Amino acid sequence: MKTADIVASPVRLNAVEAPGQPEPSTELEQLYRGFERELLVPLWTEIGDLMPVHPRSKASPHLWRWDNLVALAARAGQLVPVGRGGERRAIALANPSLGGKPYATPTLWAAIQYLMPGEDAPEHRHSQHAFRFVVEGEGVWTVVNGDAVRMSRGDFLPQSGWNWHSHHNAATAPMAWIDGLDIPFSYYTESQFFEFGREKTTATSKATPQHSRSERLWGHAGLRPVSQPDPTTATPLLAYRWADTDRALREQLALESEGHPATLSAGHAAVRYTNPTTGGDVLPTIRAEMHRLRGGAATLARREVGSSVYQVFDGRGSVTVGDHTWSVGRGDMFVVPSWVLFAATAATGASTLDLFRFSDSPIFEALHAQRTHVGAP
Amino acid sequence: MKTADIVASPVRLNAVEAPGQPEPSTELEQLYRGFERELLVPLWTEIGDLMPVHPRSKASPHLWRWDNLVALAARAGQLVPVGRGGERRAIALANPSLGGKPYATPTLWAAIQYLMPGEDAPEHRHSQHAFRFVVEGEGVWTVVNGDAVRMSRGDFLPQSGWNWHSHHNAATAPMAWIDGLDIPFSYYTESQFFEFGREKTTATSKATPQHSRSERLWGHAGLRPVSQPDPTTATPLLAYRWADTDRALREQLALESEGHPATLSAGHAAVRYTNPTTGGDVLPTIRAEMHRLRGGAATLARREVGSSVYQVFDGRGSVTVGDHTWSVGRGDMFVVPSWVLFAATAATGASTLDLFRFSDSPIFEALHAQRTHVGAP
Amino acid sequence: MKTADIVASPVRLNAVEAPGQPEPSTELEQLYRGFERELLVPLWTEIGDLMPVHPRSKASPHLWRWDNLVALAARAGQLVPVGRGGERRAIALANPSLGGKPYATPTLWAAIQYLMPGEDAPEHRHSQHAFRFVVEGEGVWTVVNGDAVRMSRGDFLPQSGWNWHSHHNAATAPMAWIDGLDIPFSYYTESQFFEFGREKTTATSKATPQHSRSERLWGHAGLRPVSQPDPTTATPLLAYRWADTDRALREQLALESEGHPATLSAGHAAVRYTNPTTGGDVLPTIRAEMHRLRGGAATLARREVGSSVYQVFDGRGSVTVGDHTWSVGRGDMFVVPSWVLFAATAATGASTLDLFRFSDSPIFEALHAQRTHVGAP
Amino acid sequence: MKTADIVASPVRLNAVEAPGQPEPSTELEQLYRGFERELLVPLWTEIGDLMPVHPRSKASPHLWRWDNLVALAARAGQLVPVGRGGERRAIALANPSLGGKPYATPTLWAAIQYLMPGEDAPEHRHSQHAFRFVVEGEGVWTVVNGDAVRMSRGDFLPQSGWNWHSHHNAATAPMAWIDGLDIPFSYYTESQFFEFGREKTTATSKATPQHSRSERLWGHAGLRPVSQPDPTTATPLLAYRWADTDRALREQLALESEGHPATLSAGHAAVRYTNPTTGGDVLPTIRAEMHRLRGGAATLARREVGSSVYQVFDGRGSVTVGDHTWSVGRGDMFVVPSWVLFAATAATGASTLDLFRFSDSPIFEALHAQRTHVGAP
Repeated sequence: MKTADIVASPVRLNAVEAPGQPEPSTELEQLYRGFERELLVPLWTEIGDLMPVHPRSKASPHLWRWDNLVALAARAGQLVPVGRGGERRAIALANPSLGGKPYATPTLWAAIQYLMPGEDAPEHRHSQHAFRFVVEGEGVWTVVNGDAVRMSRGDFLPQSGWNWHSHHNAATAPMAWIDGLDIPFSYYTESQFFEFGREKTTATSKATPQHSRSERLWGHAGLRPVSQPDPTTATPLLAYRWADTDRALREQLALESEGHPATLSAGHAAVRYTNPTTGGDVLPTIRAEMHRLRGGAATLARREVGSSVYQVFDGRGSVTVGDHTWSVGRGDMFVVPSWVLFAATAATGASTLDLFRFSDSPIFEALHAQRTHVGAP
Repeated sequence: MKTADIVASPVRLNAVEAPGQPEPSTELEQLYRGFERELLVPLWTEIGDLMPVHPRSKASPHLWRWDNLVALAARAGQLVPVGRGGERRAIALANPSLGGKPYATPTLWAAIQYLMPGEDAPEHRHSQHAFRFVVEGEGVWTVVNGDAVRMSRGDFLPQSGWNWHSHHNAATAPMAWIDGLDIPFSYYTESQFFEFGREKTTATSKATPQHSRSERLWGHAGLRPVSQPDPTTATPLLAYRWADTDRALREQLALESEGHPATLSAGHAAVRYTNPTTGGDVLPTIRAEMHRLRGGAATLARREVGSSVYQVFDGRGSVTVGDHTWSVGRGDMFVVPSWVLFAATAATGASTLDLFRFSDSPIFEALHAQRTHVGAP
Repeated sequence: MKTADIVASPVRLNAVEAPGQPEPSTELEQLYRGFERELLVPLWTEIGDLMPVHPRSKASPHLWRWDNLVALAARAGQLVPVGRGGERRAIALANPSLGGKPYATPTLWAAIQYLMPGEDAPEHRHSQHAFRFVVEGEGVWTVVNGDAVRMSRGDFLPQSGWNWHSHHNAATAPMAWIDGLDIPFSYYTESQFFEFGREKTTATSKATPQHSRSERLWGHAGLRPVSQPDPTTATPLLAYRWADTDRALREQLALESEGHPATLSAGHAAVRYTNPTTGGDVLPTIRAEMHRLRGGAATLARREVGSSVYQVFDGRGSVTVGDHTWSVGRGDMFVVPSWVLFAATAATGASTLDLFRFSDSPIFEALHAQRTHVGAP
Repeated sequence: MKTADIVASPVRLNAVEAPGQPEPSTELEQLYRGFERELLVPLWTEIGDLMPVHPRSKASPHLWRWDNLVALAARAGQLVPVGRGGERRAIALANPSLGGKPYATPTLWAAIQYLMPGEDAPEHRHSQHAFRFVVEGEGVWTVVNGDAVRMSRGDFLPQSGWNWHSHHNAATAPMAWIDGLDIPFSYYTESQFFEFGREKTTATSKATPQHSRSERLWGHAGLRPVSQPDPTTATPLLAYRWADTDRALREQLALESEGHPATLSAGHAAVRYTNPTTGGDVLPTIRAEMHRLRGGAATLARREVGSSVYQVFDGRGSVTVGDHTWSVGRGDMFVVPSWVLFAATAATGASTLDLFRFSDSPIFEALHAQRTHVGAP
């Protein structure tokens, strides 16, 4: 840091007119120069920004259209090979207020990943927690510690830290899906590790099985293999299939129609993907949920500590994030920064609006810093 | 307690010849009389029984044949009405070494319950935790807080403490099933509460639905209703269906055949029924599991702190409990007292041996008193 | 169990007149004989006793006078040697309603232990959790895994399961103290293990140090040795000294006098002995507390699931346990069975009434079975 | 974000030569422009920085000399009033590699605070967790929810989030101390709340008491007020006094000298400040410890996920942080970034080196992301 950096800090200049500031004087100026020389910054000039009354996110609400994402990813499929070093053909949402960094929000990474027929994304492992979610297509398998996991529309595939994984496209068409990770959080907190694995996938069989071994062992509601007695910090179940998610959401709406409590609010069903060994979130740092609104129904307006990324899985509707309101359809992605008001409404009609959401909520719950405000501002 | 009771205590008389006893004398006799008058008992005469090297269960291994249980229950169906006061037509296993008490083991109650066509067992609630397991038949529904739960062969229905419940036989034939509860433990520790409810079942619909509301809300592997965010001390899922249990066991054996770790030991698959909000046991005091042995396969021999009750769900085989070895078939029930060696072997042939088991293990795990010894004695 | 035992069961005979019983008949009689032959007991004849509306303890309230306890213990000191086999010169309270068993309550053991000058109680270990509490005297040391722990008036010494321990009286006078253990609970649940150790104490030094190593490592409020990072299931601190307990109680009453919340109710201070690695109870199955009432003050009346044993540490007052009210003074011991109303009042005057209490509450909290009712019945 | 921002990103330009990059071409250039227009950033150009093999901290090791800190703080005492708006006369360490931000490390704030005789720092509360540590002086009291807490040399005063607090200097001399907070972490994760309180301190008495109410209630090792039964997310104890800390450290070294395990390594004693209701860290996001090295002794070299700030409390020695080695003395402060090697050695001689340390370790432990490497690199 050069001394000049501090002098030029816009925060400092603004702060002179902030409440509670000392009168400008030559002596004060000398004191501030002294601070700079010693690499010190006073609280009183910074407190308004540093310690706001409530979170004021640096991130902006923003919407990315799926068509644009897919078109650019497809072009990358033609121009950019996949292999060791670059590791993945993944293209990340860069929040417009986060300095060009590939961060959807301050803590969350969200990317479209794209694999051409026959391609392999090489094996590696990292301490960052990840998941895949498939808004359309099929044919790619993710191989986790040698267990091949089929990927199909609507499937959610968590990928907890430090497990070997690779991808292979066994189909005759390209396939796109989204990746979510805690890369920005790990990067900022400087807690990440990475290791390269083999160049080729490590599937134990040529053909992708219908169900991964993890599903066969763990995918039975309320039933735990006695051979696996201990809770694990992340889910051992590697795929949550759309048929199950869809049925769970349908049942919530049906129960509501029959007069029983099941939904979050009128017409708003939601399931959270959980770790069957604990009942808690699938990953230590990432919460993932699927929300469904009946045609014409709306969520309650809501603010929460922490940020979310949404992808429209199906249907049409409108979403409000802070001062923005957008019409959205399949595949569209948008971010809700911390403490920014969010609400969604499904288009009127027979069909529902399905919203996939992931967030950093487990971080705040683990640290007892979670707050939620439900209702209009 | 009369003074004479202590004098006559067989423990006291035996103890005189136990190691570390004082020399008999008139003075000692007077001292012991003084103890009796003051309602005192010395440790040194009792320690061998009170503080053994390892658990020496008061309970005995014992086997009850299903045919006999059903025959007596059917006869009770003709002679004993079901209604308020008696509450249930349940007939409990009374371990031959527990003084004629209706205790299968010191902590566990196990009974056959029997309901004639059209009969109702009236509503009540109690702090004791319970479950039903159905070895054969169908047509009865259990109504829990107004939620009607179908009962069919192979289903496991947990019933955690202090929930209103009743039973109704909507079929044209009688039906029998088994009940497991922690009645002896609650009785001994003097921690139980009971309340009468309505005389009639409180089902909200005439016909039993295929799936209870609890299943529609909670019966989706790894998916949690977001409207129900908090962990609960017992499972909110009121039925674990045989089709799911069977599939989970089949998959474990298939994975084993493919060379992957999934079973407890060679040819021995097992699932534990769990609370989806915590991943832990279904009930705070009762563990329930289904075990499957391939034809010809055997479990490892095993001793555990705490007691178990088993019912053969299907197949044939032999079981060893301490010094006893029995041939067993469908519906037969037996108890394994604390720290008594247990092993089972499936009959050779194509079919498997399925054993339903429940135990008091959660008590010992909660209190950090669990110990297990695997292998021959 | 002989068949005749069941026939003769007084419960069965009484039950015939209980509500909800079938009409007596020859067929019913034959059915009941059939139950006996098959070792079965029906619920409907037992339910009134087995599943009461609230706990109805088999144990009775009872008071033991300290003078009597000490006199008999001293006589035992003359007549009964201490050594391998008998292990301890401990004389247990035998609740008058528990069949002459050495059980203060269904779950708790309470005994006076007595050691003559120069005597050693030999080393052993057991899974039962224990503590010592010293109402008067000093000079004995307990040696735990080689760590010598001084015992003096007012000190509380927890002794968690499976640690080697012995006692040595290094003074020139006999010394008495009380032991509390979960022997009845471990015995009933059949979860106990025992092992003999060396004949002689294993203290590493001749003289008892003022403070044990455990106190030097763990006895600093809010400070944890970084070399010992993990929580332990029972406390690593082997002595809680009277000076600290007394100061904590004085401060609560002083804070109350200054108008701040600190006491349980007016004039009623209380501290719980805790495990510094978890903040929870010192032992997995036993809670221990010291209560202090200002002169003339009274506790609120209270019922709780689970049982307690009290010893008057200092002062005079009266205690009510169910239908009994006793005047009590130093050293007197009494039991409060489950769900029996308890209240205490300190004698009017300058001095306080100090009551040491231990209970089985952690068992019920761990199993989510705790209930408390505060206020008159 | 302007498009130009992304183009100019130095990461992007460097990345062209990183392994696994596509061949430059006009088409690739057009693709990258497309990414920029759509606010997208590819993984393959960023992965080397974003997902390193192990943490590579943006922060630098740096040392601040206490004399310089005090001199500047004293000058601020003359020139900068304390009051509403600026809130505190606190001057923060600004890590030289963190862009002039007042961050000692990416997650931790460390500042010297200074109060002139008679001054009040006004009441406020915030969700950020804080503590004070006093390297020298006395006379200031911190008032927390009306409870006045004396501050003296060696005292550690945790201040958990959302409690009202103010400071008052009741002495005739200025006083300086250090503040530690999780401001950068809260700021980055956008999870902070703030509220102004009264202008004046809310002490209930004129004179500072020797002990705060919190100490009188909670400052007794292993003793918990029964009136406060539940665990709290942060410590209820508002002061950890030097006399206790010093004694705990002395005892560890004495035990080591007597041949017993007590220290982290030879000559290295350490205590962690803990929450007496849980045994865990005092604050959900901040760990605080005091380390003591015998004269001439050295710590083991160590790398950890997460960052620390140290202040020399007493003695002299040298510390190594990555490539830097500094001689240090009383009051000097330095930072150890994530995964940077740290070791310290006490100067040879009779006196010990006492190091106060605070870190963000609880964050990583809560999220299961903690890793430690002990030993040379």
